[in-house]
Amino acid sequence: MLKIAVDAMGGDAGPQSIIEGAVHAANDFDLEIVLVGKEDLIKTELAKHRVVGGRLTVHHAGEVIEMSDEPVKSVVKRKDSSIVVAMDLAKRGEVQAVVSAGNTGAMVAAATLILGVLPGIKRPGIATLFPTIHGLTAVIDVGANLNPTAEQLFQYALMVEVFVRKIVRKVRPTIALLNVGEEESKGTEAIKETYRILRDSELNFIGNIEGRDIFSGRADCVICDGYVGNVALKVAESLFTLIMSLIKKELKTSMLSQLGALMCRPALTAIKKETNYEEVGGAPLLGANGNVIIAHGASSAYAFRSAIRTAADFVRHDINSDIVRRVGSHKTSEETKKGKSL
Amino acid sequence: MLKIAVDAMGGDAGPQSIIEGAVHAANDFDLEIVLVGKEDLIKTELAKHRVVGGRLTVHHAGEVIEMSDEPVKSVVKRKDSSIVVAMDLAKRGEVQAVVSAGNTGAMVAAATLILGVLPGIKRPGIATLFPTIHGLTAVIDVGANLNPTAEQLFQYALMVEVFVRKIVRKVRPTIALLNVGEEESKGTEAIKETYRILRDSELNFIGNIEGRDIFSGRADCVICDGYVGNVALKVAESLFTLIMSLIKKELKTSMLSQLGALMCRPALTAIKKETNYEEVGGAPLLGANGNVIIAHGASSAYAFRSAIRTAADFVRHDINSDIVRRVGSHKTSEETKKGKSL
Repeated sequence: MLKIAVDAMGGDAGPQSIIEGAVHAANDFDLEIVLVGKEDLIKTELAKHRVVGGRLTVHHAGEVIEMSDEPVKSVVKRKDSSIVVAMDLAKRGEVQAVVSAGNTGAMVAAATLILGVLPGIKRPGIATLFPTIHGLTAVIDVGANLNPTAEQLFQYALMVEVFVRKIVRKVRPTIALLNVGEEESKGTEAIKETYRILRDSELNFIGNIEGRDIFSGRADCVICDGYVGNVALKVAESLFTLIMSLIKKELKTSMLSQLGALMCRPALTAIKKETNYEEVGGAPLLGANGNVIIAHGASSAYAFRSAIRTAADFVRHDINSDIVRRVGSHKTSEETKKGKSL
Repeated sequence: MLKIAVDAMGGDAGPQSIIEGAVHAANDFDLEIVLVGKEDLIKTELAKHRVVGGRLTVHHAGEVIEMSDEPVKSVVKRKDSSIVVAMDLAKRGEVQAVVSAGNTGAMVAAATLILGVLPGIKRPGIATLFPTIHGLTAVIDVGANLNPTAEQLFQYALMVEVFVRKIVRKVRPTIALLNVGEEESKGTEAIKETYRILRDSELNFIGNIEGRDIFSGRADCVICDGYVGNVALKVAESLFTLIMSLIKKELKTSMLSQLGALMCRPALTAIKKETNYEEVGGAPLLGANGNVIIAHGASSAYAFRSAIRTAADFVRHDINSDIVRRVGSHKTSEETKKGKSL
């Protein structure tokens, strides 16, 4: 049976919601979970839940990499941290995937240092699915690589296209570059070069899009550097929460509004569901030589359960094999092209 | 009387709303407006409105720089374009400010090439005011400089602090760096260096903030590169519109919701007002040797009127003199510091 290591120590709110989410995933999906972290702490939490048929085991790890720790240093030094131990389990083949809501930088560093990158890949990138008015849109990168080269951005496009084909089930996903304007002449040097490479590639490239186009669902895949992607993701999340809380506050200002709010509740609940980040769950680290899913630091139990499901889907679709084939076949044609144009 | 040149040809929707906004500004505020663009077109539009006491004149410019035109090239070649002609009027002192909703890149190029930059300034940056739950927050840069150095980012902080002091009337505005995490070790090389410079400066620096903190109003001034700032701005704008339209759609799905929506309308209107970008109007190009206000391409007449008011405030507060003093006094202490630490 599919085995997934879950870092029980990561996450902003402590192990409670992670373990609750893991218990739900173990009960609801066809998989086994290895909870990695401080054994006593995990067992105390586990005692609060009922797990069906022994699908949840505990693997002790005595240390924790905190959110504020320097990624590379802590991965190198803290061999007994839950992130490093979970990654070691994957390296040894004892689990098929790793899920963590811990320090994102440490997850990227641990994956790169312990599992390595897939053949031909320069740098891994984090792909997140955004809910839009036309279904899901994948954005890569949202924080692993703040200064990618054009080649790395192009590889993100190749990788995320495979991911969206398999997971979102789009036959020929559209690819767009996130930029400050739609014109080919806009953007940083890296973005302009990526534009040219994408335009000449076999991908379904639709050109540059602006920040406003992400949530209109104009493209199935959006390519950008990790700084921009990370800020866009967090602006979007916070703004949604902010507007909803403004609405709630305003609706309480008069008796009439309160009554109105009561009548609108089903509609507001529907919107919340339609735009629910928790449904989407974790974000895969594409390009890592293994199945690595990064969950949101503030994940609820439900969001964490979704992240574990994403990990299972990622393994079952064998996405990494497709990525290697895709990038490999492309490499030659790309290098030929480069040779010609230079 | 204060004289402001308004580019009548810029903007996504053509001159109608610009001219309507200019007419309102001329009627409502104590200023004179010079509409720059195709004379016959402007006069046809003007005929639809009533202007009080000859406060609106027309200055012919036969060409237009389109949104898709390459900025520097078009500014150099199209000497008779509305943007270049308006900037020339400012250069000759015939107007005290320029407002345009046209091609942002061309505005930045025209300002830099024709007016030049303020003494000591390396690169101008666009500062936009965002409405947050704790009042207004200024973000710089939102599209003029996609790859700023640490020194340029630091100058943005110095300039925007003056702007916020004068326009938002904060006594000692807080300054934050937009980053992928709060830790000093996070970010690109330029961001990390800017962090150190800001920390050692006399500014009220509160450290790094993430995308989610912009709209919570954690900082009065947010510093970032133009790529990130531009995407953040456009994500925010689009998401607000998107959520409001989702709400409207959902509220129409049942009779009960429709009745509820009617009762909630005052509350929703209040939210719309509280988060209204149109109130904020234009964004100044800080560091230009002149008063240059960039209005949103999709500006309504009301938003354009606000942009003209911003231009008038900018001139009346003589913000540029303060910026020159601030950057000048800082330069020496900064250079001394650099000499010491190197």
